[in-house]
Amino acid sequence: MSTKRPLILFDPHPRSVDQIFDSATRQKLESLGEVIWHDGSPASDAHLEKYLPEAVALVGQSSLPKERLDKAPNLKVVFNVESNFMSNIDYEECHRRGIYVLGTGPVFSKPVAEMALGMALSCARRIHQADTAIRGGNETLYGEGDNQDSILLSGRPMGVVGCGNVGRALLPMLRPFASEIFVHDPWIHSSVLKELDVIPVSLEECFQRSSVVFLLAATTTENAGAIGAEYFACMPKGGIVVLVSRAGIVNFDELLDAAESGHIRAAIDVWPEEPIPAGHRARRTPNTLLQAHRAGNIPEIWPLMGQLVVDDLEQVLKGLPPQRCQRALWETVSKIRSKPSEQKGQ
Amino acid sequence: MSTKRPLILFDPHPRSVDQIFDSATRQKLESLGEVIWHDGSPASDAHLEKYLPEAVALVGQSSLPKERLDKAPNLKVVFNVESNFMSNIDYEECHRRGIYVLGTGPVFSKPVAEMALGMALSCARRIHQADTAIRGGNETLYGEGDNQDSILLSGRPMGVVGCGNVGRALLPMLRPFASEIFVHDPWIHSSVLKELDVIPVSLEECFQRSSVVFLLAATTTENAGAIGAEYFACMPKGGIVVLVSRAGIVNFDELLDAAESGHIRAAIDVWPEEPIPAGHRARRTPNTLLQAHRAGNIPEIWPLMGQLVVDDLEQVLKGLPPQRCQRALWETVSKIRSKPSEQKGQ
Amino acid sequence: MSTKRPLILFDPHPRSVDQIFDSATRQKLESLGEVIWHDGSPASDAHLEKYLPEAVALVGQSSLPKERLDKAPNLKVVFNVESNFMSNIDYEECHRRGIYVLGTGPVFSKPVAEMALGMALSCARRIHQADTAIRGGNETLYGEGDNQDSILLSGRPMGVVGCGNVGRALLPMLRPFASEIFVHDPWIHSSVLKELDVIPVSLEECFQRSSVVFLLAATTTENAGAIGAEYFACMPKGGIVVLVSRAGIVNFDELLDAAESGHIRAAIDVWPEEPIPAGHRARRTPNTLLQAHRAGNIPEIWPLMGQLVVDDLEQVLKGLPPQRCQRALWETVSKIRSKPSEQKGQ
Amino acid sequence: MSTKRPLILFDPHPRSVDQIFDSATRQKLESLGEVIWHDGSPASDAHLEKYLPEAVALVGQSSLPKERLDKAPNLKVVFNVESNFMSNIDYEECHRRGIYVLGTGPVFSKPVAEMALGMALSCARRIHQADTAIRGGNETLYGEGDNQDSILLSGRPMGVVGCGNVGRALLPMLRPFASEIFVHDPWIHSSVLKELDVIPVSLEECFQRSSVVFLLAATTTENAGAIGAEYFACMPKGGIVVLVSRAGIVNFDELLDAAESGHIRAAIDVWPEEPIPAGHRARRTPNTLLQAHRAGNIPEIWPLMGQLVVDDLEQVLKGLPPQRCQRALWETVSKIRSKPSEQKGQ
Repeated sequence: MSTKRPLILFDPHPRSVDQIFDSATRQKLESLGEVIWHDGSPASDAHLEKYLPEAVALVGQSSLPKERLDKAPNLKVVFNVESNFMSNIDYEECHRRGIYVLGTGPVFSKPVAEMALGMALSCARRIHQADTAIRGGNETLYGEGDNQDSILLSGRPMGVVGCGNVGRALLPMLRPFASEIFVHDPWIHSSVLKELDVIPVSLEECFQRSSVVFLLAATTTENAGAIGAEYFACMPKGGIVVLVSRAGIVNFDELLDAAESGHIRAAIDVWPEEPIPAGHRARRTPNTLLQAHRAGNIPEIWPLMGQLVVDDLEQVLKGLPPQRCQRALWETVSKIRSKPSEQKGQ
Repeated sequence: MSTKRPLILFDPHPRSVDQIFDSATRQKLESLGEVIWHDGSPASDAHLEKYLPEAVALVGQSSLPKERLDKAPNLKVVFNVESNFMSNIDYEECHRRGIYVLGTGPVFSKPVAEMALGMALSCARRIHQADTAIRGGNETLYGEGDNQDSILLSGRPMGVVGCGNVGRALLPMLRPFASEIFVHDPWIHSSVLKELDVIPVSLEECFQRSSVVFLLAATTTENAGAIGAEYFACMPKGGIVVLVSRAGIVNFDELLDAAESGHIRAAIDVWPEEPIPAGHRARRTPNTLLQAHRAGNIPEIWPLMGQLVVDDLEQVLKGLPPQRCQRALWETVSKIRSKPSEQKGQ
Repeated sequence: MSTKRPLILFDPHPRSVDQIFDSATRQKLESLGEVIWHDGSPASDAHLEKYLPEAVALVGQSSLPKERLDKAPNLKVVFNVESNFMSNIDYEECHRRGIYVLGTGPVFSKPVAEMALGMALSCARRIHQADTAIRGGNETLYGEGDNQDSILLSGRPMGVVGCGNVGRALLPMLRPFASEIFVHDPWIHSSVLKELDVIPVSLEECFQRSSVVFLLAATTTENAGAIGAEYFACMPKGGIVVLVSRAGIVNFDELLDAAESGHIRAAIDVWPEEPIPAGHRARRTPNTLLQAHRAGNIPEIWPLMGQLVVDDLEQVLKGLPPQRCQRALWETVSKIRSKPSEQKGQ
Repeated sequence: MSTKRPLILFDPHPRSVDQIFDSATRQKLESLGEVIWHDGSPASDAHLEKYLPEAVALVGQSSLPKERLDKAPNLKVVFNVESNFMSNIDYEECHRRGIYVLGTGPVFSKPVAEMALGMALSCARRIHQADTAIRGGNETLYGEGDNQDSILLSGRPMGVVGCGNVGRALLPMLRPFASEIFVHDPWIHSSVLKELDVIPVSLEECFQRSSVVFLLAATTTENAGAIGAEYFACMPKGGIVVLVSRAGIVNFDELLDAAESGHIRAAIDVWPEEPIPAGHRARRTPNTLLQAHRAGNIPEIWPLMGQLVVDDLEQVLKGLPPQRCQRALWETVSKIRSKPSEQKGQ
């Protein structure tokens, strides 16, 4: 390494370089430093340890225990491009050394938020069911039959559980409809929520007072499976639950029970077991809208990951804090129970 | 009629009183004047002509040719509660006499706008198709297969054809998404559209420049069948057309052709013939989302019609202009080709 | 008149053509019809009566009693470019004949609204007084002395009396600040106000509940002098009253008394007598911000009047309703007590 | 220290406890831990060193060099309540130890933003000058004389230099007016600015393209005195410069020259030397609006400082990141040239 240009090390598996870097972004990246490209498979330990001593940035999910950080004295920033912060990094040590650990997860916020709203509208008006009916020749005209429990979102209170990136992307989309927005998020101070012009509430109140509840929270050591029958029961009849973050935060069977009973409608994108078992009861549960974990992973946002990497690398190389990626917060990262997914998606 | 209280005459067929007046509104109405209730069937000529001489307000769609207006010297306001202004009224004569002819159509604006957005989101993300797939056990996980042409609405230009009540209800719902909103409406001056913060364009430009086009215009003597193949062809591939006002403004077969070809996706709520013929090809056309004229007619907005009637009657009785109902504009009413629908709906 | 082009008759005094028509607008006007230009002084009766029989549009404030309307069978639209609808027109006869009587007053809405907000902020923070202090060498640093009663607008309730053009221009400017906006306007139905997302209140409540009250109503036969001591007294101490429409709606002396007492601050742009008498006590009244009827009349909006005229003339010639000017409402125009002003201004 | 409750150490000079803690907030603070109150004068070293070993939080601006941090093993958070981050703290060592250094500066954002808008409106319409004129009997009615160069903010492009807390508080207040908002901030990535829906520009472009430029940047080692004659010269004639952050970012004499020449109008709240020297030329410079560093320091926001302290202390004690105060960023804090002010104000 005779060059003095910053060394940028790649280990993006399971992403591929082509998926997340378009050519303009790749070119910009190369203007910022010397890039050690790697693709296809996880980088070997030997490869990593050859370059880490000079590396200023690492793009990928390589393991970074303290011992390895000790061998990377120039490292300033790590970009997780898979989107789930995993336990193979010593986050506290990174913090002590002033190494940013960043994730490109924010690119999924808008796709998930749009899907969540689309699912809510579909449930409110039974759009997907009416489409199926017409294809089978079973429609009723002018909604005579199937509009009886159609509801307007306009003027209705809505609830949001978990007000992170997706929640903040969703809020402006809800404003034109919602009379009031209730938010439950134990990690955000109620004063901060009030400044976002939402009403901070307990989890129970969120269900009680909202016609639609959007479940957007990550699964943590504290909330796993926490949302069950008693919450669905306290919603107003005809209430809509939209589950698009992680299945782990709900009691999935009780969610399906509540839909089956007709008390609520459930829009579901994430599942306790994926792929969804062939005989899963949800496939036959009425009052549901079902998607197979498709909310975030749409092709047009993949190249945004590369752009976030390059933008924040620019900041860091200027001695400025990163601003576009999500930071792995040493305070909370250990509480998040996400597993590296096998998919390209969120 | 010894009373001096204003006489309010009812002839609401095909609506029923119960459908559009809740008890609070009915009570308020009765506080405003002497109500001659009538329900169930159209009022007879004899009934109408008995009360018209004293009537200050008429709630219904009774015929009002000039000769009958001559017999109604106290009439100040007519409320059409069916929603389509028909040709059985002499609008110019009403104008000359200072009789307002009002319609309760604005109550349908929000339901139609919400449905239109829901249909657009469903098409953009193939929500309805993915739901069908999962029920049939044919889903692909993480959108691997069926997300390939999913698009975000955020950041995309959108088009609106016809910027009346529905268009104005839809605009705020589009703002959180749209980069630019193009509007074609030959009845609204381009300066007025600019003040609404939209970009006035020709019909052709509206299709060329928009990723989603919402068709919200009434059928008129000038636009019937005007939107055909050449407009769909000039949309970007994957463009979405949402038809929720009247089927008469498009060439319906060419719309289906464009969807079938895969060039566009079509979300359709209104049909050239209703009920939809059993063997209609649309039932088998891919890249469509189909609804059976259900966008406007949801039960929760029915009582709003009564509220609009009472609010504007209050205004008129105070010598103030009505503000909530839509006015039948003598300038344009004769150009609108709407037929009284047989339904209770829009 | 051998031409068949629409005849457009001018009588704009006290405005001049140059003031309100820039060259592009003038050119556009001439493309719409045959213009009979007149300028400088009021047009003579002879001149008017020569052209009225053919005239389709009249731009000016000429008298139009019924007898003269009888001689103007082709007249479709009258544009008042002075801004006050006066009693020299038979409005009901115009209505009967389908002649629009329009005013270009809306061009003043934004200047007045901006001035009103600027005056409110100046009073809230005593900006004008602090500027005077520093010029006289009497300032106190860091607001030690003069910030004691400075108030934030953010988070405070605000009131609007009269929600016409100016009020509607002001509302979006208040949104970033106001927690709640109270509106009193007896001509607008409370349901309509609610749809504007404001809270309809009585005049008394408007003063009681607002930290700042904007007086934007026209003087009418019903409200002249109506706002006096009891209203100012019920404001919270330190409340701000901004008077920018017409002095006639307040008891001016009681307004000054309330400011002098220190209970409220008064921002005043309009006066019972104009020019303001040399010895007027207001010139020495503390807790006031004084302007000499300057809120609306700024040069950059003058050419907008011509543009409104041309835009609406285009509409009318196409058989469409005008959309940019304000209509003289036959229902309420007779109640408005505005006098033709001698100025070029509002 | 027999108690296990978190120890909260106070050293708030030059603030006093009463100024920034109302009784409810004080009570809440005491519910969170054992408070060692101190007031009036700076705490002595002996006092600090007695309590620091147990202290979890420090409220004040005490010196915290590395040696002292070594003696404070339980310290988790330091609250600067004066608002300027000074060089008496070893920020990097605090970062390494996971000690948050926070400031209550955000409470000043809204007062400064409101004042900035008020000053801009006053300059645009010469409100302060017209008030002075009327008090001296020199007014001209209807703005005949003094409105000639009055400008509307509506529809005009505006510029913001420095998009920190004040800038972000100002943006929503500018939206109802500005056609476009240009922002220059070298510390914020252009992609982030675009997401705020503003246009990132160079400093020069910011002046060239804006009718009003708000100077909101802190003085740094890089920008001191950087904004001079060439920038003011490239504004459009009649442009308005609003200086409310720190005088150090402009060449003050050249700013006054530009106002004196009539090319721009200058609204000034901060001064190179404070108190302002008696004979300072600005006191006689035309086309200016002058304030004596009063924008931020209004009494009603003082108790918010205490609320920010308590809210973020709650977060930190729960193991969550602080969210309401501003963090001293170790990346940039050393570049900021702010001196501890002698005032209670900003």
